[in-house]
Amino acid sequence: MTSQTGLQVPVPPALDRCRSLVEPALTTAVRSLHPLPRLMTSFSLGWCDADGRPTTAPGGKGIRQALAVLGTEAVGAPGDLAVPAAVAVELVHTFSLVHDDIMDGDERRRHQESAWKAFGTGPAVLTGDALFALAVSTLAGAGGDHSGAAVRHLAEAMGELVHGQADDLVFESRPWTGPDAVGIPEYQAMAARKTGALLGCSAALGPVLAGAPPLLVGALSEAGRQLGLAFQAVDDLLGIWGDPAATGKPVHSDLRRRKKTLPVLAAMALDPAAARHLVGLLDSGIAVDADDAYHAAAIVEEAGGREFALEDARRHVASARECLRAVPLAERAADELVEIAEYLLDRRL
Amino acid sequence: MTSQTGLQVPVPPALDRCRSLVEPALTTAVRSLHPLPRLMTSFSLGWCDADGRPTTAPGGKGIRQALAVLGTEAVGAPGDLAVPAAVAVELVHTFSLVHDDIMDGDERRRHQESAWKAFGTGPAVLTGDALFALAVSTLAGAGGDHSGAAVRHLAEAMGELVHGQADDLVFESRPWTGPDAVGIPEYQAMAARKTGALLGCSAALGPVLAGAPPLLVGALSEAGRQLGLAFQAVDDLLGIWGDPAATGKPVHSDLRRRKKTLPVLAAMALDPAAARHLVGLLDSGIAVDADDAYHAAAIVEEAGGREFALEDARRHVASARECLRAVPLAERAADELVEIAEYLLDRRL
Repeated sequence: MTSQTGLQVPVPPALDRCRSLVEPALTTAVRSLHPLPRLMTSFSLGWCDADGRPTTAPGGKGIRQALAVLGTEAVGAPGDLAVPAAVAVELVHTFSLVHDDIMDGDERRRHQESAWKAFGTGPAVLTGDALFALAVSTLAGAGGDHSGAAVRHLAEAMGELVHGQADDLVFESRPWTGPDAVGIPEYQAMAARKTGALLGCSAALGPVLAGAPPLLVGALSEAGRQLGLAFQAVDDLLGIWGDPAATGKPVHSDLRRRKKTLPVLAAMALDPAAARHLVGLLDSGIAVDADDAYHAAAIVEEAGGREFALEDARRHVASARECLRAVPLAERAADELVEIAEYLLDRRL
Repeated sequence: MTSQTGLQVPVPPALDRCRSLVEPALTTAVRSLHPLPRLMTSFSLGWCDADGRPTTAPGGKGIRQALAVLGTEAVGAPGDLAVPAAVAVELVHTFSLVHDDIMDGDERRRHQESAWKAFGTGPAVLTGDALFALAVSTLAGAGGDHSGAAVRHLAEAMGELVHGQADDLVFESRPWTGPDAVGIPEYQAMAARKTGALLGCSAALGPVLAGAPPLLVGALSEAGRQLGLAFQAVDDLLGIWGDPAATGKPVHSDLRRRKKTLPVLAAMALDPAAARHLVGLLDSGIAVDADDAYHAAAIVEEAGGREFALEDARRHVASARECLRAVPLAERAADELVEIAEYLLDRRL
């Protein structure tokens, strides 16, 4: 997949700066775990291979920790203050990847085996649990006057995230057409929970910890949530048209897995003839092979599903930008948040 | 298995009283979940069958909620104040049962299928996660001056619980004999984490929420932890000699599953000849059949493993009693806590 805009947006330098700020505390937190979940967490973060040997595997982009730090700087507080919040959201993110891969049966993650595939389902369940507990205790132990409010904020986001994952699980067994089919608004509500809640929480959690006024917390939270919706739409695009060399997943992978994603649902809503074709290809009861998936991708594109999802992502990034511009935030940090939003829209990986 | 003392200790009335106090809030909390984890939680709590029809299945004993309420009354605060703490610890307990059954491959729980067996592994992972998040947000939302401290307390207990479960998982692949064998002190440290931490937290969490002095919180926490160690020892006894009609598990079930439990480890430590026999029966590389398990149970008993575990449970109950008597607590609640301890020691189920 070429870049969404045709231009290649460079990696925002803020990502590296925030990573350097947060990494020591994240490393210390992970070191406090029992050896088994510690190894599995280091593996999941791309720090080592399954035998514990240091690797140079590409870890996550560190979007969530960056939002935590930049959100805090945006309300005029020092970025250091956000570190426990940044660690907590990265841990919750890693928890959700480890458990989601079990639920979805995904065998690959970031160009290596997923945690359950490499270590077994039981240890992967355990590792997610350990990360969840560690996230809460890291934040609860942050001290200051506002750590109680911050924990409340994080717990709500975790509840939403799990709710979104439950929606997604239930969508799998829903029909493609008819009155029980998954509609676009319902899909968006799922994405807002599954992906938006934690990104919204990431941007707002440092400010909550810093005792920022509710107006600013609300704007950052909503900006993060909009970014999450854009992120999900781009993920859905990459799940169909992403370059396997970049995504580490087979071509048309979401179609082969019959996933109900935004481009497909949009194509079906926009074009009844395409819907009939797609149901024939994706819902035939037999495996979706490479040819069928290739064919389905072409139908989705022709019916406008690809353009719909791309436009949806652009619209959410624009909304995020508006949220950030509507309230008085420190200019540099707000600009860096916008840069990250544009980078996410443009990412190839 | 007949009652441990030969006498039948009646069910303490405090359990029912505390259940009545906590159940409305627990029900409200569970109702706030997404329909899928809500159904699975109601099923796991024994409130309904897998299709959602109300049942009269025996749910849990409600020990943890009772400790939360009685601990709070023991420090002179009203039991109502403990309700969010009681709900949180019952939710964490249910979370741990749902996830532990996945990790241990247990297909039965409380005379019905375990959650993963009835609904699938993915939904069971999800349900545990939902319960974990709900526990934290219930407690974080309790309000008052001390909910931050209470969340910190709960998060630490959750971390310990997961650490203990990790120990237990790792024990499975450790040898029965030699320098890497699991020793009794190591086993006890695991049990203190896996079972003791949440019972200690249960007894202390309401008092923390009520702002009780650290001396009282510490005594209640330690009493709960000792109770947890007793509880684990009794569980280990029931896992070998429990009446299948009462436990809902096959006779000698832990031996058939080659579980490293206290009676077996004690027998091996006490009697080298028994150890050699037991290794031959339990570590032969082929399945442990009913005859081998019967034989192994007899060897464990003869070598003194059964008596050792029973004595261990008694000692921990005595320690719990001492903790409660060493500090000034409200007499009635302290008496009720002791009654629960004696009931747990004596339980047949």
